[in-house]
Amino acid sequence: MTNNQSRGYNGSLLRVDLSNSEISIESIDELFRREYLGGAGFISYFLWKELKQGTNPLGPENKLIFATGPVTGMSLAGSGRNCIGAKSPLTGGIAKSEPGGYWGAELKRAGYDVVIIEGKAEKPVYLSIQDGKATINDASHLWGKNTKDAQQAIRDEFGDKLIQVAGIGPAGENLVRYACIMNGLFSAAGRGGLGAVMGSKNLKAIAVRGHKRPKVASSERVKEIRQWALANIPKWLAAAGSIAFTGGSEASGNLPIRNFRDGSFPTVNLLSPEAISKTIKIGADTCFACPVHCKQVFKFEEPYRVDPAYGGSEYETAAMVGPNCGIDNLKAIAKAGELCNAYGLDTISTGATISFAMECFENGLLDLEDTGGIDLRFGNAEAMLKVVELIAKHEGIGDLLAEGTARVAKKIGKDAEDFAMNVKGQEMPAHDARLKPGQGLGYMINPHGADHCCNMYDTAFVNEEQLKNWKPLGITQPLSLEDIGPRKVSVLKVVQSKTIVQDALVLCSYIPYSFQQLTEITEAVTGWETTVTEQLKIAERILTTMRLFNIRDGFTSNDDRLPKRFFQPKTAGPLGDRVCDPVKMEKAKSYYYVLMGWDKNGVPLPEKMEELGID
Amino acid sequence: MTNNQSRGYNGSLLRVDLSNSEISIESIDELFRREYLGGAGFISYFLWKELKQGTNPLGPENKLIFATGPVTGMSLAGSGRNCIGAKSPLTGGIAKSEPGGYWGAELKRAGYDVVIIEGKAEKPVYLSIQDGKATINDASHLWGKNTKDAQQAIRDEFGDKLIQVAGIGPAGENLVRYACIMNGLFSAAGRGGLGAVMGSKNLKAIAVRGHKRPKVASSERVKEIRQWALANIPKWLAAAGSIAFTGGSEASGNLPIRNFRDGSFPTVNLLSPEAISKTIKIGADTCFACPVHCKQVFKFEEPYRVDPAYGGSEYETAAMVGPNCGIDNLKAIAKAGELCNAYGLDTISTGATISFAMECFENGLLDLEDTGGIDLRFGNAEAMLKVVELIAKHEGIGDLLAEGTARVAKKIGKDAEDFAMNVKGQEMPAHDARLKPGQGLGYMINPHGADHCCNMYDTAFVNEEQLKNWKPLGITQPLSLEDIGPRKVSVLKVVQSKTIVQDALVLCSYIPYSFQQLTEITEAVTGWETTVTEQLKIAERILTTMRLFNIRDGFTSNDDRLPKRFFQPKTAGPLGDRVCDPVKMEKAKSYYYVLMGWDKNGVPLPEKMEELGID
Repeated sequence: MTNNQSRGYNGSLLRVDLSNSEISIESIDELFRREYLGGAGFISYFLWKELKQGTNPLGPENKLIFATGPVTGMSLAGSGRNCIGAKSPLTGGIAKSEPGGYWGAELKRAGYDVVIIEGKAEKPVYLSIQDGKATINDASHLWGKNTKDAQQAIRDEFGDKLIQVAGIGPAGENLVRYACIMNGLFSAAGRGGLGAVMGSKNLKAIAVRGHKRPKVASSERVKEIRQWALANIPKWLAAAGSIAFTGGSEASGNLPIRNFRDGSFPTVNLLSPEAISKTIKIGADTCFACPVHCKQVFKFEEPYRVDPAYGGSEYETAAMVGPNCGIDNLKAIAKAGELCNAYGLDTISTGATISFAMECFENGLLDLEDTGGIDLRFGNAEAMLKVVELIAKHEGIGDLLAEGTARVAKKIGKDAEDFAMNVKGQEMPAHDARLKPGQGLGYMINPHGADHCCNMYDTAFVNEEQLKNWKPLGITQPLSLEDIGPRKVSVLKVVQSKTIVQDALVLCSYIPYSFQQLTEITEAVTGWETTVTEQLKIAERILTTMRLFNIRDGFTSNDDRLPKRFFQPKTAGPLGDRVCDPVKMEKAKSYYYVLMGWDKNGVPLPEKMEELGID
Repeated sequence: MTNNQSRGYNGSLLRVDLSNSEISIESIDELFRREYLGGAGFISYFLWKELKQGTNPLGPENKLIFATGPVTGMSLAGSGRNCIGAKSPLTGGIAKSEPGGYWGAELKRAGYDVVIIEGKAEKPVYLSIQDGKATINDASHLWGKNTKDAQQAIRDEFGDKLIQVAGIGPAGENLVRYACIMNGLFSAAGRGGLGAVMGSKNLKAIAVRGHKRPKVASSERVKEIRQWALANIPKWLAAAGSIAFTGGSEASGNLPIRNFRDGSFPTVNLLSPEAISKTIKIGADTCFACPVHCKQVFKFEEPYRVDPAYGGSEYETAAMVGPNCGIDNLKAIAKAGELCNAYGLDTISTGATISFAMECFENGLLDLEDTGGIDLRFGNAEAMLKVVELIAKHEGIGDLLAEGTARVAKKIGKDAEDFAMNVKGQEMPAHDARLKPGQGLGYMINPHGADHCCNMYDTAFVNEEQLKNWKPLGITQPLSLEDIGPRKVSVLKVVQSKTIVQDALVLCSYIPYSFQQLTEITEAVTGWETTVTEQLKIAERILTTMRLFNIRDGFTSNDDRLPKRFFQPKTAGPLGDRVCDPVKMEKAKSYYYVLMGWDKNGVPLPEKMEELGID
């Protein structure tokens, strides 16, 4: 055994061509594992290598890839995730998203690390993978069902309630461009419209069950890390989930309010953890092997019923369908979250698209005729809930809004484009670049458009206590939040690198593992001797591969830009007149290219590709 | 106490202006320590900040800096070194060199981390530093003495044989442009002519003695690392010293033979470890706290006496005054090594300059009149020994050759320039770029000219076993020795970074600590939490500062080039027709600039300087 052989995870790749029902199993080369790790790494490689330029994201030529990483399914906090990717019907570039839950761990126990779905089934099907055996099954009876009913039906068919289901709801079937894929009922591969890709293939679900325990190189070291994590889980998150962040976000000027237009939301306290606990929260759930329990569980019956099986809202959901739509009605927000999970809609893009439509409506760019009589004003909770449903069904105003802000704005015209809060066509999450230009730069250069998960770091510079965490990355003096100079860009690159390595391993970003600990986890699981230096190179490899994928399909440096609104002040609130500086943002972007070894147009240098071993 | 405060080393900076005998003590800022570490880092900073453009290296405006690092003097293998730097009279750019021995550890015990020598004494002096107290003392009686006699005289004056002396011999006094500074009698700050700078200041020596034990943050962790090192010292080095490398170097085509002209040296076995053991070796010595004992000790009386106090030759010495001068006479080689240590001459530049003169002589560019009757042909051992002495004394042909190959070639004319084996005016060490173009690139871009210490890595790619060590740096597939593509360049950057961090810590490169272990050593000693990511940034900071120093004094990308001979085949030997490819070498250089964040002319981008915090 050489150093290049993993003594840990060793599942195969399952390739399923739905056009001709061919199923094949491929082994995964050890050197390839070492160079791309897994998860987002594998996805970047296969999409770059196997897709042709100009592939229709909703055509049979697109490939939908489910990839675990070496950490998926290990007995470690944060190991519940897997990664899903495809060419995005929302951005036209690469899409990838990491749902939590139990599905990834179960896929490994069934003997596979990766599943690649190709082609398109003639009629609705679902894929069953049980202890190595994969079958394509009729799903006519499941088509049209929400995620809960579909999951239940599949479990009933096999008489096994431990079957894990990754599937789509009506939104994916109806090709909503920001439909998601749900792992179970409360963990979403939210971003990029992966659910629409699944729907376009007539694939309702992948049901997995396995009994093979994945191997690790050193269970002793895994145990040590598990114990460290147990002692270091983020207590605030365990106590109230990310939704607890909403009040502070409003106070700092971070919270999106009425389509990122306004800066103040006085009734934000209606969404406080205390309010939630008193009214709708009945518990908290968690992912595979995770002690955090960050997943809220909501239940109520009036004025509408919310089913606790769908969990509860996270911060992004609450912010986007709540204040960003001018809504402070906690139950309406919770209901919207439940509907999105049942229909299989990305809560961020859904909330952002509705808030965009509300602003268009208030400005006369959409009228009652367009909305089918819905008074789509900011703050109208009932209207918001109705539109969520219409989007999922691709009906009425939802038929238009199912296309996402970028396409709808193009249809409506130039005035609407000012209200379309997206990067590369993917809607903005609930963090304001005017407060955190470092995060804004992250939105700009992220290969799959506006995404907070890839760049969640800028708040770390607020004070000396938080700065401490960045010293080992080479930042020894405080950087202000406003700063968007070269040092900030340099940290962004390191943080982005760490994040993409997490997405390749695949590991939840909520556990505060340091970069060094990621290498220790990698070693414990695979047996490879590795270092941060190697992982930085892996990060460059994955990010450059994703960049090349986008460039092949026509993306340029011009697509790495923020929406106009971030250069205009909010109407009020703690940020005052503060805006992103367009010149500084462009300079920061250029320097990011330099640090990546890309040319001034953001095109990877041939030497960089050769260095990283990319064809 | 914040994370930024070192709980370890904490000496002061001693500034001595010899022009007016002013001595002052400055504290060293903790943040500065963290950003530049020490040693080569401190030297790069002070020379960049305090020297003016156009400073005469041999004028009073030059500054000679002795800097320890956080590791110097700790109870750890490899901690015997300190760093010395100044503007080089040989290259006109930055010079720095790391001698071993005991002096650095003693300086720390005397309470200082750094000594900066400014100005010029009216008459010869030496500096004494004893337990914090510094005095400038008359050295008229020491001037002209060899290093051993000078050291003995100082020890006798104080009646303390444990006084450690860093000093120059006649070569430094006589401003030979490649005079060295000796720590004791067998550890040299060889490269760059630092001894001439010391001589130009009329400073014969710095004698130190102290009793303060430097603090460490965690003596427990230091102990663990010490034990690891003890179990992992390089056995071949401990057995026979680096001179044992000579035979293998000839066999691979690496050994310089007759001024890098020839490829075969059939009598190399006369220099084998067996031959050495049988004839001249009487033991082995070592540096502070080091279990390796790589320093050979030679002694013999016939045909000339070699004093064992001066130790024995290392590989570079033996190769440069031996085969590179066509000489296989082991005793003559050993004598040349002894003379260099006694006179204070860099053995590499001395051997290279003599071999250059020999080729000029054989080609009629120098004649018997020039040499004062010396038959300066390749292979003439007596002539070589005579010229070593003349160089040290700046007499006869030595008056010319004391200027180094670049200046002499310029005087003789174009034909001689083809024989001048140097980069940036500093003579080539004993590793051939035709065999190892990766090392050749290292020679090109090294801020202080041709130097093997900064780039000793290319042989690591020969086989799978050695490759193993590079995997954690991101190299997962073998790279051939011939390779000089982007992946090789990328590894060069990491290895160069690791090396400069070692030179800043200051730590001997012979102990096989990994980059990760360097961060562990840093933490153990200083108490800072650090990572490879931070140390990579520190390396960029130091290397970029050195680059800026050179650019300020007129260096351009054109100075980053190999001598012509490396693009021509050797006359015979294992390399056959193999040469460096000029196009590939230039491409590799350009890509190195990209990786450093320098522009296409090798000038650091303003953004890179801002990122690194360089003014």
